[in-house]
Amino acid sequence: MYEHIKGFRDFYPEEMGARRSVVDTLERVARQYGFREVGTPALERTQLYVDKSGEEIIEELYSFADQGGRELALTPELTPTVARMVVAKQQALTKPIKWFSTRPFWRYEEPQQGRFREFYQTNVDSFGSSDPAADAEILAFTADALTELGLTGAEFEFRVSHRDILGGLLETFDADVDVAGAIRAVDKREKIERAAYYDLLVECGLTRSQASTFDELLSANDLSELTAFSDNERLTDAVTNLREVLAATEDFGAREYCTVSLDTARGLDYYTGTVFECFDSTGDVSRSVFGGGRYDDLIEGYGGQPTPAVGVALGHSTLSLLLERAGVWPEEAITTDYYVLQVGETRSVAAEIVQSLRTLGHTVETDVSGRSFGAQMGYADSINAQTVIIVGEQDLESDQVTIKDMQSGEQTTAPLDSFPPEQGRPTYDDYA
Amino acid sequence: MYEHIKGFRDFYPEEMGARRSVVDTLERVARQYGFREVGTPALERTQLYVDKSGEEIIEELYSFADQGGRELALTPELTPTVARMVVAKQQALTKPIKWFSTRPFWRYEEPQQGRFREFYQTNVDSFGSSDPAADAEILAFTADALTELGLTGAEFEFRVSHRDILGGLLETFDADVDVAGAIRAVDKREKIERAAYYDLLVECGLTRSQASTFDELLSANDLSELTAFSDNERLTDAVTNLREVLAATEDFGAREYCTVSLDTARGLDYYTGTVFECFDSTGDVSRSVFGGGRYDDLIEGYGGQPTPAVGVALGHSTLSLLLERAGVWPEEAITTDYYVLQVGETRSVAAEIVQSLRTLGHTVETDVSGRSFGAQMGYADSINAQTVIIVGEQDLESDQVTIKDMQSGEQTTAPLDSFPPEQGRPTYDDYA
Repeated sequence: MYEHIKGFRDFYPEEMGARRSVVDTLERVARQYGFREVGTPALERTQLYVDKSGEEIIEELYSFADQGGRELALTPELTPTVARMVVAKQQALTKPIKWFSTRPFWRYEEPQQGRFREFYQTNVDSFGSSDPAADAEILAFTADALTELGLTGAEFEFRVSHRDILGGLLETFDADVDVAGAIRAVDKREKIERAAYYDLLVECGLTRSQASTFDELLSANDLSELTAFSDNERLTDAVTNLREVLAATEDFGAREYCTVSLDTARGLDYYTGTVFECFDSTGDVSRSVFGGGRYDDLIEGYGGQPTPAVGVALGHSTLSLLLERAGVWPEEAITTDYYVLQVGETRSVAAEIVQSLRTLGHTVETDVSGRSFGAQMGYADSINAQTVIIVGEQDLESDQVTIKDMQSGEQTTAPLDSFPPEQGRPTYDDYA
Repeated sequence: MYEHIKGFRDFYPEEMGARRSVVDTLERVARQYGFREVGTPALERTQLYVDKSGEEIIEELYSFADQGGRELALTPELTPTVARMVVAKQQALTKPIKWFSTRPFWRYEEPQQGRFREFYQTNVDSFGSSDPAADAEILAFTADALTELGLTGAEFEFRVSHRDILGGLLETFDADVDVAGAIRAVDKREKIERAAYYDLLVECGLTRSQASTFDELLSANDLSELTAFSDNERLTDAVTNLREVLAATEDFGAREYCTVSLDTARGLDYYTGTVFECFDSTGDVSRSVFGGGRYDDLIEGYGGQPTPAVGVALGHSTLSLLLERAGVWPEEAITTDYYVLQVGETRSVAAEIVQSLRTLGHTVETDVSGRSFGAQMGYADSINAQTVIIVGEQDLESDQVTIKDMQSGEQTTAPLDSFPPEQGRPTYDDYA
């Protein structure tokens, strides 16, 4: 038997059916918002990630040289790919460019709860609008998608912030502070010891006292506490923008899911404005269910015209943990509308019935193994067939078939010339 | 701008929409046949392919060592993966095990018409039945899928054969002939010069005269010509099996698409019985649209219990060429049910209308860019919005919205308290 690759998964039909149902819901909602599906490659040039995130990213990648000597990487995230696609057809694309897709990504990381080396995301991005309504539309899509999956607002919360609030605050202490480093420290705030967190801030150029004030301000309940502390322009602009985004989420019906959370910094350096993460309200699922934000500089950084952008990546691993915790993960079971059972040499008649039922849109199986009555009935049961149509030689002599309801076990006969009917979903009840 | 990787493609929304529609049709038909979706990893141990196909396969793979020293390959095909999955849960799975999936695969080959380094397939496999009806069910699924896509029987043909017909015939000449080599030669018959083809057969152990007789028999129109030539048991068993498969396709409604074609050998060595390929009837698309067959030894070869198997892989590249050639490739265009246009400070009312229309199941966009009337109308046109709902400050004073039909350009007003209605798809015609 071949060994499994660590961090990679096989999905058998029961689990896959539940996952498919979740993906279908996410994508249906994305389509209703006017996001359009794109198809993207599994490999990109490694340079695409190095240019965005630095050489150290290579450690986390599945990267290799192909037989033509190209340095390639299995895509660890979608954003660089869609940014590349926007740059490639920038003139031809009508803005806002609204795209979605669901697919696997790969990172060489240590697997843990809700984290795999091969993991699936639904990415939703909007390019070309710097208006706060574009940020709010991404949040509203996400809220609608989660509630369509059966979650209520009590189950999850969106923690929303703005990267320039942190940057602006830090500037008020000292213009030379390492802002990117301090933001990375904030991103670790909940995960590391208090002392270690302060050490990181001090390393970035704050005094101990400033670090303490800074940390207190992060817990502010009201954005006006920030503008009262400082009239730094970067800070006040960010507060204004965040307020406008929140006002737009109010119009779009998503405000109730949003909490201002200034220590939501997002680890990725390319965010430029709004940042947000979704968490399990109970805290049972400790990792974020999704993260996203505004990244207005990436397209230009990849050689395109300046193009504002905002997007979100929903991670299916943590999403499924949240749906399970909330009791709304779809049932993992296969179902079948009909099993057409052959008794004796009745395959040609059985096959006609099978075809007619499939034409009506139903899922129908019949024997392809030359099995006995009992073995066929056992198989019909194993695939959760709701109705079994028994096509027997004796019944056929009187132009009849037998219809068996698998839940009650009751059965009756139906005349062959009216079965199946021209439409509908004929069951035992229609003929009893 | 970042260079594209050779043989890899980006799919923008228009093309992706057409591709999605094709995939949806294939998968809907597969589900109606009782095939169940599985999810499979993009990487496998390289050994999985070497054990099945020999060391030379590595040249065609994207393979590399990961940071933990594992020799891994991007999956070049699905069969080894699903065979591994069957072996891993053999006891728990009810037979026949009927699986499908659609996903990309990767091979380091020279790109040409209909062939890419990253290519998409829908794979459909059935494990656990050696009955000819299982082979026929795969063929019937494929025929139904192609006709559901809009093709008629005049557009394509299934070339069907049985590996043991070639093997049995070759045995009648000489027990020591290199059967696998000769079958590979037959697989190249249409692609290479006649003389080179005969040379290959001679290298495998046939005399020139035997090669000529063998080649004539391959063109036999009637399977009884073969059994008249020899009563070799392997040959006669294969002919019997092929006849039974064809009889079952008759019952399942797919016989009309099948042509016996003895030079259909399939390049892959693991086929053990029926083999089939689908071709464009006009020959315009020169490569096969799909290939498949019976592979009864693979599961055992991978360490499982002996388990018969039969399956097919539909290649989306050649399939799309066939659908285009036949004029039934889906239209590559995006469509939108409604655009809700905001004039003045009307976002909150517009957003309510947007939400109501989405709740009815429609695709609805609204402004997220703070645009003018004209710019919004231009955008609505670019996304092929069928109806534009204009929410203007003046209209709202008299509790009305304007409904514009984008095809005719005509517009009328509707009272806000009855728009949108509780169900349906309100258009200009409902209010004019």
